Parts: sequence; structure tokens; C-alpha cells
Amino acid sequence: MTSENGGGSPTDGADDPPDTEGSDGTDPDGKAGGSDPDDAIAPNRNALWARALVDELAAAGVERVVFAPGSRSTPLVVAAARHPDLALLSHLDERSAGFFALGIGRRTGTPAALVCTSGTAAANFHPAVIEANQARVPLVVCTADRPPELRDSGANQTIDQEKLYGDAVRWYRDLPEPEATPRKLRRLRVDAARAVGTATGTPAGPVHLNVPFSKPLEPVPVPGDVPEDLADRDPGAVHGREGPFVERHANPPAGDAGASEVADLVETADRGLIVTGPADAPPEGFPALVDLARATGFPLLADPLSGVRFGSHVDDAPVVGGYDGFLDPALTGGWPAPEVVLRVGASPTSKPLRKYLARAADRQVVVDPAGGWREAEFAATHHVTADPDALARSVLAEADLSDDEAAAVDSDWRDRWLSAERAHWATVEEARGAGVGSADPTGPGGDFGGDPFEGAVLAAVVEAAPDPSTVFVSNSMPVRDLDRFARPRAVDLTVLGNRGASGIDGIVSTALGCGHATEDPLTLVTGDLAFYHDMNGLLALGRLDVEATVVVVDNDGGGIFHMLPIEEFDPPFTEAFRTPHGLDFEPTADLYDLSFRRTDPGDFEAAYRDAVDGKGSTVLSVEFDAAGSHRTREAIQERVVERIRDDGA
Amino acid sequence: MTSENGGGSPTDGADDPPDTEGSDGTDPDGKAGGSDPDDAIAPNRNALWARALVDELAAAGVERVVFAPGSRSTPLVVAAARHPDLALLSHLDERSAGFFALGIGRRTGTPAALVCTSGTAAANFHPAVIEANQARVPLVVCTADRPPELRDSGANQTIDQEKLYGDAVRWYRDLPEPEATPRKLRRLRVDAARAVGTATGTPAGPVHLNVPFSKPLEPVPVPGDVPEDLADRDPGAVHGREGPFVERHANPPAGDAGASEVADLVETADRGLIVTGPADAPPEGFPALVDLARATGFPLLADPLSGVRFGSHVDDAPVVGGYDGFLDPALTGGWPAPEVVLRVGASPTSKPLRKYLARAADRQVVVDPAGGWREAEFAATHHVTADPDALARSVLAEADLSDDEAAAVDSDWRDRWLSAERAHWATVEEARGAGVGSADPTGPGGDFGGDPFEGAVLAAVVEAAPDPSTVFVSNSMPVRDLDRFARPRAVDLTVLGNRGASGIDGIVSTALGCGHATEDPLTLVTGDLAFYHDMNGLLALGRLDVEATVVVVDNDGGGIFHMLPIEEFDPPFTEAFRTPHGLDFEPTADLYDLSFRRTDPGDFEAAYRDAVDGKGSTVLSVEFDAAGSHRTREAIQERVVERIRDDGA
Repeated sequence: MTSENGGGSPTDGADDPPDTEGSDGTDPDGKAGGSDPDDAIAPNRNALWARALVDELAAAGVERVVFAPGSRSTPLVVAAARHPDLALLSHLDERSAGFFALGIGRRTGTPAALVCTSGTAAANFHPAVIEANQARVPLVVCTADRPPELRDSGANQTIDQEKLYGDAVRWYRDLPEPEATPRKLRRLRVDAARAVGTATGTPAGPVHLNVPFSKPLEPVPVPGDVPEDLADRDPGAVHGREGPFVERHANPPAGDAGASEVADLVETADRGLIVTGPADAPPEGFPALVDLARATGFPLLADPLSGVRFGSHVDDAPVVGGYDGFLDPALTGGWPAPEVVLRVGASPTSKPLRKYLARAADRQVVVDPAGGWREAEFAATHHVTADPDALARSVLAEADLSDDEAAAVDSDWRDRWLSAERAHWATVEEARGAGVGSADPTGPGGDFGGDPFEGAVLAAVVEAAPDPSTVFVSNSMPVRDLDRFARPRAVDLTVLGNRGASGIDGIVSTALGCGHATEDPLTLVTGDLAFYHDMNGLLALGRLDVEATVVVVDNDGGGIFHMLPIEEFDPPFTEAFRTPHGLDFEPTADLYDLSFRRTDPGDFEAAYRDAVDGKGSTVLSVEFDAAGSHRTREAIQERVVERIRDDGA
Repeated sequence: MTSENGGGSPTDGADDPPDTEGSDGTDPDGKAGGSDPDDAIAPNRNALWARALVDELAAAGVERVVFAPGSRSTPLVVAAARHPDLALLSHLDERSAGFFALGIGRRTGTPAALVCTSGTAAANFHPAVIEANQARVPLVVCTADRPPELRDSGANQTIDQEKLYGDAVRWYRDLPEPEATPRKLRRLRVDAARAVGTATGTPAGPVHLNVPFSKPLEPVPVPGDVPEDLADRDPGAVHGREGPFVERHANPPAGDAGASEVADLVETADRGLIVTGPADAPPEGFPALVDLARATGFPLLADPLSGVRFGSHVDDAPVVGGYDGFLDPALTGGWPAPEVVLRVGASPTSKPLRKYLARAADRQVVVDPAGGWREAEFAATHHVTADPDALARSVLAEADLSDDEAAAVDSDWRDRWLSAERAHWATVEEARGAGVGSADPTGPGGDFGGDPFEGAVLAAVVEAAPDPSTVFVSNSMPVRDLDRFARPRAVDLTVLGNRGASGIDGIVSTALGCGHATEDPLTLVTGDLAFYHDMNGLLALGRLDVEATVVVVDNDGGGIFHMLPIEEFDPPFTEAFRTPHGLDFEPTADLYDLSFRRTDPGDFEAAYRDAVDGKGSTVLSVEFDAAGSHRTREAIQERVVERIRDDGA
């Protein structure tokens, strides 16, 4: 927050409009124009304006207003506080507030309104706005601003907020200055409806309303500011309607364009794949696409963030989750290529999968409801703008797959994938069960290098997490380890991450925003750097009453760099890349009044179950040696590939 | 940092240029094109490119490179690490890194280079970039980027970094992709020189170079990537020159336009004022302007951040620092108006001063070296683009002031100001000395309301700070209390704040950046919200070896709101505005390995002296009740005004 503002009465601000110069704003019991202010439409134009805006946001579906305290945003905050259907959520650090609001939209698909005062407060939202844009998360940003005459004047806490987020928002509008006229109020109500409509459109994303206010910012009566007959002249403009000012209905793209061609591709292919990348918000799975996988027998490669890796369909659909571990060119080089690949969602987390898809298929169909081209190997041969599930239904109807479930599939092809899948998970289970971590190279874990590996944490979490619950993972290694070590399961897990821009910023807050938005128990699995980056976000636990189990996979900074060739160049590797920080996060327990528990990798699963069963929030820290963990990770992969080769695949 | 990147060899990245596909990047001892790589110009084009850029930044004056670890920026970080004249400073949170770099430029006038990887990392710099823009602090931002073919493709950690900071930078350039050709390298070297030249120009400010790299990012040999005869063909392009590639010299505006008119205004005015607002970076004082004040006798109203409130000239020049306390309309309404006001620097911190200037003068001259119009009351009658000190010298030469120092001034006018100044400080001293804080309304502090006031902390710091030293203050109340309670003194104090956008973000890091850049002892005085907002910045104490005394004026959130009328509206005042957080910052001691000491307001000065004398860094927390402190602040002001009135002024 940037709670910067001048003191004194509301009428001596640099930005007072001349017409309020004479009002006595300091007396809340003052009379507006001689009449009782309680009878007045609103004490002043700012209050009327903010109420109309906030009312319409709520009518359009917004349920939560996240803000960081400041002065210029006072009319908006007061209006939100007085609205019976809005939860007003106060953070202190705008960057954390931004990601907290992002988490609400991420988990639910309903945007939070995100409010700040003027100045750099708004710039602190920028990372969350970019993530919302790229991950298609609805978000309505309302930045209070100084009035136009103060912009570029040297006035205090005044920056250029116009188009502050550039092309990262779906819609931007610099609202006019508040005016108590029917025309302006109608446009304002329409703008609020449009803001929510655009944020929740296809694709969903952030919108930005810049909202200038002159003083007085408080709901003090300003005689004559709001004409007494305004509501008589246009009740709709002043009080809105029962329900939203404009009832919105938006249809995503529909129709069958492309369906016949895709049906033909599917029907004639012996070897096909369906790939579900990270889902847009909220993740709702792709039931028809799963049906298509069942009907064709095409392996369904499910990113852990796709909404498809977990769920009851896993029991009877050919869901594959181990690809990140077995798609080794040394192995797949001997495999026949798929004839067709259907791709939905964002670009998959798994680099081995992306590389495999770049090399593999003659026909790759990218399906995106918003017409996005989310495929960075430039291997797509077909592009269909359609809801993936609607397209799958059309394909199921058009393709001749009904009589024999496996009619379209080469069963060797399917078996090859399912057998590789089994080999992967069997090996992972061996590694987990063999007491990796005994540090004895001749012991049972010796086959895997003897070092505990971070992936075991992710494997354990998806096994032990409550059903249903929400699991949020940070970028860098946790999401990769999730991808490789989290076995598909028939449970109701909502697994989320910030894969839009894949930053390590704002992770704690995004997760806690998800937790605030549902009744689900929440687990966050984060690396130590992401945890550190957004420690301020922990404030929401107590302040906004969120409960979470936070698992910190602590390798003292930057384990991911052990995967990169820069490791060979030291210096500058250790100092400039591995980034050891030596931080012990235990003091966060006292700072934020949470339980902090340190556990050995070997005891992690039991400690995690305890934490989840207990009341209140726990930070569970598990220390790893990044280099050792990486060695074990590689050893497991080698073992998987060997095993599949031994199986003759 | 956003240390997100794929694993594997450097040549299997999504963004590999096809021409490096066959190279074996994992072997650092490999041979480049059959010759020894140590003899080669550079192992690959990226290394050559980054070295040329970093070399020229250093040749142009950059001494420090601040970065947060990541992968895409590897060529830049490796080049900086290998440069003998550059300090490579690694932070973990890019927002803190940005402000740390800002602090370096703020304190020294020499820009730091600020480097990050691709993605939201760059967006985390945005608040610091805005502050650098508005406070005129030089800063060279280099954001690594993915190559153009990956932009807007759904590729991992790829965002739209083009013009990311909008109009907040003085210059933006999206560098071409690295190429080992003389023409491209020459342009790159010129760009580096231009970047530093623009950042340090008039006005100084931030510049942004976006720097795309394809893999390999590490200094692995890529045969054929850098032609062996390149240096023979154009040694200057490849190795640069002795010294910078382009010797830059830039003159600020010079000449006497406006000097005669200002001299005439000054000479004919009986009652004049000189107002120095917050200074551009670095603050160097205005010696000629001080001479002009001496020669005319015009009171010199010196903002605490102007570089004029402290210094040896205070002993013999009419420096006034108490205006924020005594410029009460009830008092000054009876004063004659000044005939001319000379204004330099940014808009003053003091709202009473700004309001007084808006009402007061017939002639107001705004002098700005960059032609800025930094005057938000729109009261200026004259605008001069000139270096303020150069203008002052011309005015001194042209105006007829030489014979009698006070020729131009109405001595009643000067005495009125100096007597008010004495009354202000006498009252402040009484309040400080009277044991305010005894909480006994009949005790000696009773006159002032009996509550300890936060201003006493600022008064004590400028009294007890080492001479010379740097004092950094946060926005919100500390800078206002500094303005009102820090008495002008003949000591070498460099007093700084972030008054460009006046945010409460990045305060800890900006201060520590200042501390890193000089040998001066460093004191930071911050409110608790600003301290919390940038706690991550404390990492620099140990990691970047900065020593500081950090004074936290802790009123549990948002004391400034007690100055605003919203206080009268509760709810929502307490929850939505006063923002109590209940945080106890003592655990930061364990987190960051520093001393934490809590002190009562009454013991503060002794505790501060101890902390400054001791080794290592100390956080000194002083708790205040915001409402009580505010009452005392007001009581002191009332007393000042009474006293001046009693004195007959």
C-alpha cells in the first residue's frame, strides 16, 4: 500500500475541485443542502459514483473486493464496505493483494475486484495482472487515481496510470471524473458490467478501470454536489435496477467447424494421442475429451494442472501421467510416431513431452476456445477455435467409433504407453519405498543414488491430500516434480499453479486466495525461493482467515539450476546462480502466528498427514540437498527407461 | 526472481536457433571450431554480445550490477561476473533488487545496471522504475528476454516485455538478437553508451534495454558461432576501445535566458522567498542559491530532502526549516504576501507550505534544469529552464545587491520568518524536553497532550546521526515528521527519501542501496507498514554486506489516516483504513541475523546512539499510539502558533 496523503481537512487538498472549496468536510453529521443527509441520495458525487460502480460489480457477480489501504481509493472502499453482498479483504502489500485476488479467480472463475490507491501501488499489481492475462484468470483491477489536472504536475503520489499494464489487460478504461448526471452514471454502470463481462469472457483475463477522484474522498456531505431530484429524473441511473443494470449472456464459440476434419483424422488414425495442458480458470476437466480417449483408446497425456490427471475417470480412461519420466529420446526414438495428436489447454509443463510432440506427429490439432495459438514448437498442422469438450462431443458423434471401443486404435500403441506408464510408477514406488535417503550406496536406496529426492514430497502430497481438496504448487522444481511424480488418482483434487508466466512471485498469495475462495482444505507446495519471495503473503492466514498447509521444499535456493549447464561454470555458478541464502524460515512462525515444523524427507508423509489433520495453519519445511535430489531424479529416470526397454517396449 | 527454465542440454531448448542444434553444449572443455576456446574471441555469440554490452556499461561509468538469479539472463550475469571493475550484487526478490539499484543511483548519481531474467521478474521492477522516473534517478534496466519467435507463442516464462514500463523510461530499446557481426556489435556498444548517457542526462532517469537471447545461454563453445577473423575485420567492434566506445560529454542547459527578468524581480522585491524542494539525484545542495539568500536576505525554506536543510551554510544563511509547523493560515493570514518566490527542486513535502505558496505570491518563478513543471498549485507566473545554481549566479551578478547585503530585503519580513522559526524550534525543544510521554496530563508534558510523539524520533536522529552520514526516511508520516521536527543543522547529513511517487514500497531496499554505495553510516527511519512492505529487502544486510541502523516507528499501521477525515467514519475506518496488523517484527532478527531492540520513546535517543556506535545492523523499534502521537503533534503546532502570535508576529 502507499498510504500517502496530505493531512488536514478534505477541502484543503491540492486537488480540491473549486466547487467544494467552501464545504466543511470534517463534520460527518453536517447537513447536506439543509436536508438530512440520510435522506439524500448520497452525501457527495464521489460516494454516489463509487456506490454505483461497486453495486454493478457485485450485480455482475463479483463477490470479493481485495484491497490495500490507501487514501485515494476511499470512496471505493467505503462503498464496498457498505455493500451487503461483498466481502472486503484487506491486505497490506499490493503485490500480495494482487496475487491473492488472482487466486480467487483462478480457483473459482469468478473475478475478484482488486482495488488500490494512486501511485506505485498500482504498479505492484503488474506481476499478477500479467499472470492473469497469460493464465486466463478473470480479474477486475480498479486503480484509484488523482484527477486529470494533477497528472504530470509534480503532485504527490501521482504517476501515469494510463494504460499502466499495456496490452496485458483485455480492456482498459480511464473513467471520467465522477459526475452526478444520469448519462455519466449510466455509462459507469455499463462499464462495470462490461468489465466483469470482459474479464469472464473467452478467454478470461484481467481488465483495468482507472478511477479518478477529487476530494473530498470521504462520505462527507457536500451541499449541491448531488442534485436532489436526480433519482426522480432517472431512478435507474441513480439506484440501478433490481439485479444488474445490464443482464449479460455470453456464448463461447460454438458450431462444428473443424469437427468433421478432426473426426476424420481420429477415425483414420491407428496411433493417436490426446494431450491436455494446464487448464484455464477454473479447471473443470474435459469429460467429453475423456470420453473420446475411452472411445478411441488414444492415450490421454494429462498435465497435472489440466484438471484431468485426477478424478474418477482415471479408473477407466487411458490417462497417462508418467510421460515426463519416460519420454526419453533414447527410448521413443524406436517407437512409431503418432499419426494424430489432439492438444488442448496451455503448453504442457513437461519439457520432454513438448520435445516429443515437436518431433513426433504428422498431424497435430491445437484446439483453443479463444483461438489462442499456445504451442511453441510450431508443430501444429490444424488449429480449431472451439470449446475442446464441445469439439470432442461433435467428433464422437461424427466419427465411427461406436461399435468397437478400440476400433480406431492400434492396441500395441495403447499398450506401449500404458506399459510405460506402469513401469514409470512402479519405479517411482520402488524409489519411494526403498528408503531412498539412507545415504548408504549399498543400501536399498542405492539403486537410485542414495539421496532423498524432492519428487517424493509431491508424490506423497497427492496421495495424502484430503479428498476433496486444493493443491497449489510453485513453479521451478515443484511443478516439474509434480508432473513427474504425482500419479493419476481417482480423487477430487483441484491442482493449480501459476503457469501463465511461470514466475516464482506471488505464489503464497495466489494459493491463499484459492484457499479463501472455497471450503476445500488447501495445501501449498513451494520451493524455498518462491516462499521467500512472497513471505508477505503469509499475512493473509491470520488477517483474512485462511487455513493452509504450506510445504516448503527447502534446498537453500535454486535447485533448478542443477538442471542447467551453467552448473559446470563455477564461478560464477554458486554465487550468481545457485543463490544459497542460508535463510531459516522458522521465525515466520512467530511473525505470522502459525505452526512451523521441520521434518526429514523420510518422515514427511506422516508429518504432512498430521498437519492436514490438525487445526490452524502449518508450515512444514523439508530440507533437501539440491544436487543429491537431482542425482536421484536422474537415476530414477534411467531406471524407468531401462525397465521399459527390458519390457521390450 | 523467476528461476524458471527447462532442463536438459542447452541445445534442446524450445528456443534453440537451428544453427546450434548440433553442438554439444554440455562440455565446457569442448573445442570451438577445432581451436582452443581460450584463444577464441568468445565461446559463442551470446557470450560475445553480453560481454560487449557489459563492457560498455562499465566504460560508461556503471560500477554495480544488481540482479536476481534466473536463467535467461545468464550471458549478462556471466559477463558481469567476469568484468574486473563491476560489483555483481545478487538479490532474490526482483522488487527489492529494483529498489536497491534505485538507491545506488539515488545516493551517487551513478546508475546501477539492473538485470533480470524473462517473465514477471521484469514486472517486479516496475515500481522502482516509476520512482526512478519521477525522482530523476539514473537506472539502466536490462531485462533478458526469449527470442522473438517465442513471444506470444505460449512458451514458458515468456511475456510481452516490449515497452513494459510505458512512458516511465527515458529510452527503450528492444535489442536485436545477438549476432557476431561488426555492424551489430557497433550498434550494441553505441546503445550501451546511449543508455548510460540518457540515464544520467538532464533529467536523469531510468532506461530500459530488452535483451533477447536464444540458447545456449552458458559460455559453452559453439563452433562457427563467432567467426575467427571477426576481430581482424573490426577490432573495435569486437574488443571495444581503450576506454568507452564513445566518449560522451553532455552539457546541461546553460545561458542567461530569464536571468535578467529574475534579477529584476529579486532586486525590486522587498519581500521574497526561496524554496528548495526535494533534490534530484544526487543531492548536491545549491551553494549559489544559498549565496543569493544571503545576499538578499530572503528566507530560504529548505525541504529536508533538498540537500539544503543541513550543511555548514546553515550557520550564516537564512535557512528556515520550521515552516511546516507555523504556516497556519490563522497566522499567515495576517502577514503581508511575498512579492516574489523562487522555487527549485520537486514539489515540497510540506502541505502547509504548498498551500501557503498557492495563496501567497504575485510572482512565482519555477526553475528547473530539465524544463519540468513541478508545481501542482498552478501558481507559477514564470518558468525558467536552467540549472538553479547557474541561474542564481547570473542573478547575483546582474542584480544590484552587492553594496548592502540587506539592500533588497524588508528586514521586518526576514525577521518575521526567522522569529517564527525560532518559536517553532523552541516549542519543539520544550515538547521534547518536557518529558512528553509521562502520560500525566498535569505533568510537564501535559501542555502537549501528554502523549509521546513520533516527531521526536526524527528530531533525535538528525541530532545524533554521525557526521557525515546518510539518513533515509520512508513516506507517510516519517518524512512529514522529518519536515516538521528536523532542525536545520551545520552537519554533513545526506537526507534522502523516495519522493518521486511517494510510495511506501521498496523503502528498505532503497535505503540499503544508498548504504551500499558509500562509506557513510546509514540510518533508515521507517514506518511499520513500509518496513513490512519491503522486509524482503533486509536480505541485503547480510547478503550484500550493508550495515544500517533501521528505526521502525511502529504504530501498528497507518498513523497517517488519523490526519484524514475518514477517521470519523468507523466502520469502516479501523478495519479498512487504520490497518492494524498486530505484527511483531522481532522475528526479523532471527530471519536476517540482525540485532533487534525495542525501546520506549523516552529512551530512544540513547538507544539510537548505542545502535549507531555498535557494530553490525540493528533494527530499533519504537512503539507509538498513532492517535496520541497525532494529538501531541497538533498540540505542538497550536503552541507554536500561539507563541508566534504572542511574540507579535
